[in-house]
Amino acid sequence: MGLTALCPGTFDPVTNGHLDIIGRASQTFETVVVAALENPSKQAMFTLEERVAMLKEACSGMSNVTVVSFRGLLVDLARSQEGDAAIVKGLRAVSDYEYEIQMAQMNHRLAGVETLFMPTSPKWSFLSSSLVKEVAQLGGNVSGLVPDHVRTALDDRLEER
Amino acid sequence: MGLTALCPGTFDPVTNGHLDIIGRASQTFETVVVAALENPSKQAMFTLEERVAMLKEACSGMSNVTVVSFRGLLVDLARSQEGDAAIVKGLRAVSDYEYEIQMAQMNHRLAGVETLFMPTSPKWSFLSSSLVKEVAQLGGNVSGLVPDHVRTALDDRLEER
Amino acid sequence: MGLTALCPGTFDPVTNGHLDIIGRASQTFETVVVAALENPSKQAMFTLEERVAMLKEACSGMSNVTVVSFRGLLVDLARSQEGDAAIVKGLRAVSDYEYEIQMAQMNHRLAGVETLFMPTSPKWSFLSSSLVKEVAQLGGNVSGLVPDHVRTALDDRLEER
Amino acid sequence: MGLTALCPGTFDPVTNGHLDIIGRASQTFETVVVAALENPSKQAMFTLEERVAMLKEACSGMSNVTVVSFRGLLVDLARSQEGDAAIVKGLRAVSDYEYEIQMAQMNHRLAGVETLFMPTSPKWSFLSSSLVKEVAQLGGNVSGLVPDHVRTALDDRLEER
Amino acid sequence: MGLTALCPGTFDPVTNGHLDIIGRASQTFETVVVAALENPSKQAMFTLEERVAMLKEACSGMSNVTVVSFRGLLVDLARSQEGDAAIVKGLRAVSDYEYEIQMAQMNHRLAGVETLFMPTSPKWSFLSSSLVKEVAQLGGNVSGLVPDHVRTALDDRLEER
Amino acid sequence: MGLTALCPGTFDPVTNGHLDIIGRASQTFETVVVAALENPSKQAMFTLEERVAMLKEACSGMSNVTVVSFRGLLVDLARSQEGDAAIVKGLRAVSDYEYEIQMAQMNHRLAGVETLFMPTSPKWSFLSSSLVKEVAQLGGNVSGLVPDHVRTALDDRLEER
Repeated sequence: MGLTALCPGTFDPVTNGHLDIIGRASQTFETVVVAALENPSKQAMFTLEERVAMLKEACSGMSNVTVVSFRGLLVDLARSQEGDAAIVKGLRAVSDYEYEIQMAQMNHRLAGVETLFMPTSPKWSFLSSSLVKEVAQLGGNVSGLVPDHVRTALDDRLEER
Repeated sequence: MGLTALCPGTFDPVTNGHLDIIGRASQTFETVVVAALENPSKQAMFTLEERVAMLKEACSGMSNVTVVSFRGLLVDLARSQEGDAAIVKGLRAVSDYEYEIQMAQMNHRLAGVETLFMPTSPKWSFLSSSLVKEVAQLGGNVSGLVPDHVRTALDDRLEER
Repeated sequence: MGLTALCPGTFDPVTNGHLDIIGRASQTFETVVVAALENPSKQAMFTLEERVAMLKEACSGMSNVTVVSFRGLLVDLARSQEGDAAIVKGLRAVSDYEYEIQMAQMNHRLAGVETLFMPTSPKWSFLSSSLVKEVAQLGGNVSGLVPDHVRTALDDRLEER
Repeated sequence: MGLTALCPGTFDPVTNGHLDIIGRASQTFETVVVAALENPSKQAMFTLEERVAMLKEACSGMSNVTVVSFRGLLVDLARSQEGDAAIVKGLRAVSDYEYEIQMAQMNHRLAGVETLFMPTSPKWSFLSSSLVKEVAQLGGNVSGLVPDHVRTALDDRLEER
Repeated sequence: MGLTALCPGTFDPVTNGHLDIIGRASQTFETVVVAALENPSKQAMFTLEERVAMLKEACSGMSNVTVVSFRGLLVDLARSQEGDAAIVKGLRAVSDYEYEIQMAQMNHRLAGVETLFMPTSPKWSFLSSSLVKEVAQLGGNVSGLVPDHVRTALDDRLEER
Repeated sequence: MGLTALCPGTFDPVTNGHLDIIGRASQTFETVVVAALENPSKQAMFTLEERVAMLKEACSGMSNVTVVSFRGLLVDLARSQEGDAAIVKGLRAVSDYEYEIQMAQMNHRLAGVETLFMPTSPKWSFLSSSLVKEVAQLGGNVSGLVPDHVRTALDDRLEER
């Protein structure tokens, strides 16, 4: 059995940059599990359930991709997979890299779980969930940066405020 | 008509590092518009009006510099200028650079607005508004780091607490 | 009289990475003063008194190391030492370095106090107090990352919640 | 009279990444002077004259762009321009930035000449003259990375070897 | 059929840091191909054949690892593999990362080949072939940094000089 | 007996940035040994003897500073000092830091020798021996960047060519 790629993130909300990584992982690895994580230290715009629902719609065309929600240690999720699993993360910038390498070394120490980094496509190197939310809140147009159903959800959430 | 340099920032409060960039921009570009921005995600020490007033006093000797306050997308302010405008930002460190390049690429994508970076003078490379506030709050002497009227305003604000 | 190394930090809680730096400083410098700082901008898990107590226990085997708590400007603490004192800090990553060099240049300007950086041992390059707390909160095993008495204190604090 | 943008480089050979910066500079500044520099410390694939000729062909459609060759201190070229001139450079990566900021501070100290940095378009963030030459030498296809006449010149030069 | 990991490098000579990455790749991927590359721009201490021989001896205990020598474009080697192949590289520092991400984006553009990065084990973060050679040339002891047969080969080569 | 600071470098030639570090080290540590190193991989402008002579003249006013030349492993020089010695290095930029931390970790592993980093004064953050030589070769004025006797030596050397 092949390697499972575990793609973790907050996905608040999923962007076209995330989908670029998930799509390339789905072509590279036999199975991809996208794990939307509860992040207790950050106030999310969308609930974990909403984030999972948006991810599921965005990934519906990729047959080897499963979306799950997860609370706990990522290495526990990795160990609970059938067969071998590695964490797969997209990387943009140097600051990203330093934090991520620290997490990767901790996860390796805690449970021997490997992390593989895929460089973000240059096209999306400027994109992040928080920048998308900031632009949307200030009335900017985020079409082309997130899937259409995510853009609608952003508009709806901002109108509620 | 020449190029307008749009210098955005929170300026909470303006420091001698900011003024170094604004002064060099005023010598390089025909017109400079300093835009103090509302930053909803950060708790400011000074109100937007106070920050604009301190900036106006600090820039009063530079005839081609205007100070405005702004709420919204920076690219909208850039597009509302007569003639061509580019965002002009001072740059200190690598982490600065990465965040700023991300914003610059987003602003280019949203509205074709260019961002030009000027390296901070080495003399002020260690200076930031937040470090000035931290030092002042702990009783340190910030004279020489901010204009005198800003230092007085800092002292007054800290005494009120 | 030799040079006093002043090792400042939040130490919330002290980790084996901190102790690696403190231990190497105690072998390099005549005297080491470990200063646990009040950090008004961060919500600590342990009180300043608890952090000092954990540090004292962890450093009890090093005869030239003193632990103190401190509120105020670090340069004032440096100047209050008998003889010469320099700030000594461990360094992990690039982002660390940039923030720390900014602080070092400010401290040099404020009071002529020098800062000396020691590179973190590769073995602990992934370790930080916040990562230890995050892992412990999610139920991960942090033994080997912090001294045993700190691990017990972490467990107790998390059970109280 | 408006500001002249001085775009220096080795251009051995010019790539589509360089042309992206030159094109955006020509839309931002009144006048652009592209300066191909003799670089005594690097062995070039093309002579200075060949590099200038390729640049001239590539920039022929931009009416406010002039191409010159230059041997000497860049600040002397900046000072020899009619009216005000600033150095304008594209920036890709962090290592770029550090070297470039060092040069910019030196040029400011030597002659008060400012340097303005434009972030490279994400699309070309991976592109450099040396990488293009490396790929071409190994038989890779560089069409789309350099203008057609540069690709032909590369092929011709490599066949001569 | 599972994914083939292609581990390229100059390996002049192979170090324990390289072997840590190759070993972890062999546990993560179904098949590993280690490719020793001709590097025309660097003067090697060992010939390509010597470097391959040292690699073969060092990897002899890993049954799913093959060692090959290669001259040409890495993406051509990737495409010549049966089944899917991705480039797998160890990463140490930020400067590494920037160069490597540039290569990865070029290889993706040239042939759609993905690059996966594995963070170097903290234990070997300071290790490189060039540093090993520098230490050995100055008479330092490199045992524990390279396999024993590599240390012997280094000693022999240095004695010949 | 206090700690000896060992300040290594190529010093080809010594700059005011080097002297800032050496001067601050001489005020911080009991004894300073400046070690001019033979660097076999770089072609120097000045011989090791010339570099030592320029250093000796530049450091003549600092009574606790000794200048030596050295060929070999730096850790051997550190171990040959009476009493304790640590390597002390100035640090400018991120790329510096990464290379230097690698060297520091190697030196710690080879012989338990510590390295202490002092941040370069902002005033000299743009300065390096190679940039000084580049500017001088192109006819730029380097007074204020190096001591006067070094400027004379540079002029003489360049005239010989």
